[in-house]
Amino acid sequence: MPKISAKGHNMPESPIRKLVPYAEEAKKRGTRVYHLNIGQPDIKTPQVALDAVKNNSIEVLAYARSEGSETYRKKLATYYQRHQIDVDESDIIVTTGGSEALLFALGSITDFGDQIIIPEPFYANYNGFSVANGIEVIPIESSIDNGFALPPIEAFEKKITPKTKAILICNPGNPTGYLYSEEEIIKLKNLALKHDLFLIADEVYREFVYDGIQHHSVMSQQGLEDHAIMIDSVSKRYSMCGARIGCIVSKNHEVIKTALKYAQARLSSPTFALMASEAALETPQRYFDDVIHEYDERRRILISALEKIENVKVSSPKGAFYCMAELPVEDADDFAQWMLEKFEDKGETVMVAPASGFYSTPGSGKNQIRIAYVLKKESLLRSVELLRLALDQYPG
Amino acid sequence: MPKISAKGHNMPESPIRKLVPYAEEAKKRGTRVYHLNIGQPDIKTPQVALDAVKNNSIEVLAYARSEGSETYRKKLATYYQRHQIDVDESDIIVTTGGSEALLFALGSITDFGDQIIIPEPFYANYNGFSVANGIEVIPIESSIDNGFALPPIEAFEKKITPKTKAILICNPGNPTGYLYSEEEIIKLKNLALKHDLFLIADEVYREFVYDGIQHHSVMSQQGLEDHAIMIDSVSKRYSMCGARIGCIVSKNHEVIKTALKYAQARLSSPTFALMASEAALETPQRYFDDVIHEYDERRRILISALEKIENVKVSSPKGAFYCMAELPVEDADDFAQWMLEKFEDKGETVMVAPASGFYSTPGSGKNQIRIAYVLKKESLLRSVELLRLALDQYPG
Repeated sequence: MPKISAKGHNMPESPIRKLVPYAEEAKKRGTRVYHLNIGQPDIKTPQVALDAVKNNSIEVLAYARSEGSETYRKKLATYYQRHQIDVDESDIIVTTGGSEALLFALGSITDFGDQIIIPEPFYANYNGFSVANGIEVIPIESSIDNGFALPPIEAFEKKITPKTKAILICNPGNPTGYLYSEEEIIKLKNLALKHDLFLIADEVYREFVYDGIQHHSVMSQQGLEDHAIMIDSVSKRYSMCGARIGCIVSKNHEVIKTALKYAQARLSSPTFALMASEAALETPQRYFDDVIHEYDERRRILISALEKIENVKVSSPKGAFYCMAELPVEDADDFAQWMLEKFEDKGETVMVAPASGFYSTPGSGKNQIRIAYVLKKESLLRSVELLRLALDQYPG
Repeated sequence: MPKISAKGHNMPESPIRKLVPYAEEAKKRGTRVYHLNIGQPDIKTPQVALDAVKNNSIEVLAYARSEGSETYRKKLATYYQRHQIDVDESDIIVTTGGSEALLFALGSITDFGDQIIIPEPFYANYNGFSVANGIEVIPIESSIDNGFALPPIEAFEKKITPKTKAILICNPGNPTGYLYSEEEIIKLKNLALKHDLFLIADEVYREFVYDGIQHHSVMSQQGLEDHAIMIDSVSKRYSMCGARIGCIVSKNHEVIKTALKYAQARLSSPTFALMASEAALETPQRYFDDVIHEYDERRRILISALEKIENVKVSSPKGAFYCMAELPVEDADDFAQWMLEKFEDKGETVMVAPASGFYSTPGSGKNQIRIAYVLKKESLLRSVELLRLALDQYPG
């Protein structure tokens, strides 16, 4: 029997999805499961985007342009300009999700055995994309005690080797909800310039910032034009996770030229989803105001409810729609599985994402979980109550 | 300025798309360009697939399941069973195009520096996917003189090293139109079994076979269950290139388990396109009968017109919708570009795909082109006339 490759073996299982079979079992037993485990919002997709697809007059569902149509890229540039990101259509390659944008970025700037530095905890699939590209993730641990702020820049500098090609951040962060200050972005910029590294920023949660704090894009930093690469996606912005449309943005046209070759090899992004994404740019500001208001309320309610549980430490996220919590358990993987397998209260239980999968340092984050506040307030409150009851009853 | 990686540099430019700027210039000059260069059919997408999307009642465009829904995979299995391919839903991972299916396959079974053997000429993007995976393509040249039949199996065996992980075929072939006989498939099967290699077959043109000849899938070969991997796509079957839905199929569940990890890392395939693809399985047989009849007529008309041009050698394709032609020119890349830049007849010219990009042996196929018969008969005839006139006038 021919063998799977070492790379195939090393591909990590999704930490968010590995509990899914237990959730399915729970549902089969008739238990209602509240899903705080995934970043799938319950927010409605803008009607203008859905209508564009419903009212299409396509007769032949043809390939789109590999890099995305000029019209769509021009409109995207206008959107970015409104967010103090001065780019034009030649700086953009449309991709099949933010996932593909990151794959193209890594494929363009790294070779087998290269390294990228990422503050941890980080979005778990960065591990998978790194394994797929044959590169190594060098984590720099951030701490729940200061809300997962940027670790001291010296900690980054110490890890730089000739194999280091980039620093990758997610801003605002998944899973941390941390929003980098301009001062922190400037520290990263100076480091990138000093060592001639790329600074890749996954900014798919740009819109979701709270407490009146401003988002600072790596693309707005003067002098960083050759070094900055932005990853973006329509998934969260318009609650269109199933569109699978994103883009890679850079003023460095060697990067764009190379990403285009990857884009051409896979021919095009999905045509219906491109229609929806282009139309979504017409979404009225009111939609965002309402959505941000809703998330902000959920965030406050969730944090304040979590803070009331004894021995639970919770971070104070300023962006995205996640928060990290430290639980009085030894092994949050086991606890999360136990909640699905053995626990219920009045026929209900809750599913969370154990945080260990968001760390690449072995053993880190073992008592932490990520909570996505993508449910309505009542459901959030009930979920936290279930969590509290489960912690009381957990034998582990 | 930080540098693009060696891999990024080595990613090949799409040979089909590199002439696009010249075609665009020609159009700007007012010249009508007949496109024989890409596999984008003019055939209408089945109405049942388009309707499924038009009549959708989605309010939140959510992620789909990473591996595709159970319903869709079950229906796909039923479709395959009708084609003498005995698989069930557990043998299938739905992907974002056939492209992604091949990426998942290569990512699952190869490591950096490994080799795959491919009869050439082959679909140009196999090069790109190989570079992206850090593996080497070992070509075995087939010849226009026998219609690009399978080269002697000894030629394959000679190239097998400890780094060889798979043999990859496209059946029916793009760009050759060649349809492998069962005898040829059995030869490949015996070689794969003898050396414990995977046999990957890109069968996206399965439906497009002519002259009453039968298609033989690697998935129908007894004893090859652990070794066979099939790549498939809805793109050509339903003229839905813009859907970007495909799948990887194998009875080897180590392969499927590994491909699933890649699928989870990129979250899901596009939701609208999945709806269209599932509905497309309801397409009445009549649609295919009409489409195959149309392609078959085009094929006959095209081949017979090409054969009438002096010093043009043309293969006799039995499947897909491409044919290869050898022209009395030294450099078909230059000739194809010249047709777009310098040639026109009554305001019209033609765009073809130079074949050099379908070979990985340097210098091979330099006087060949690939013609896609994806246009109506009158346009095909006019295109061949333009080709004949261009050959007369070409100074190169």
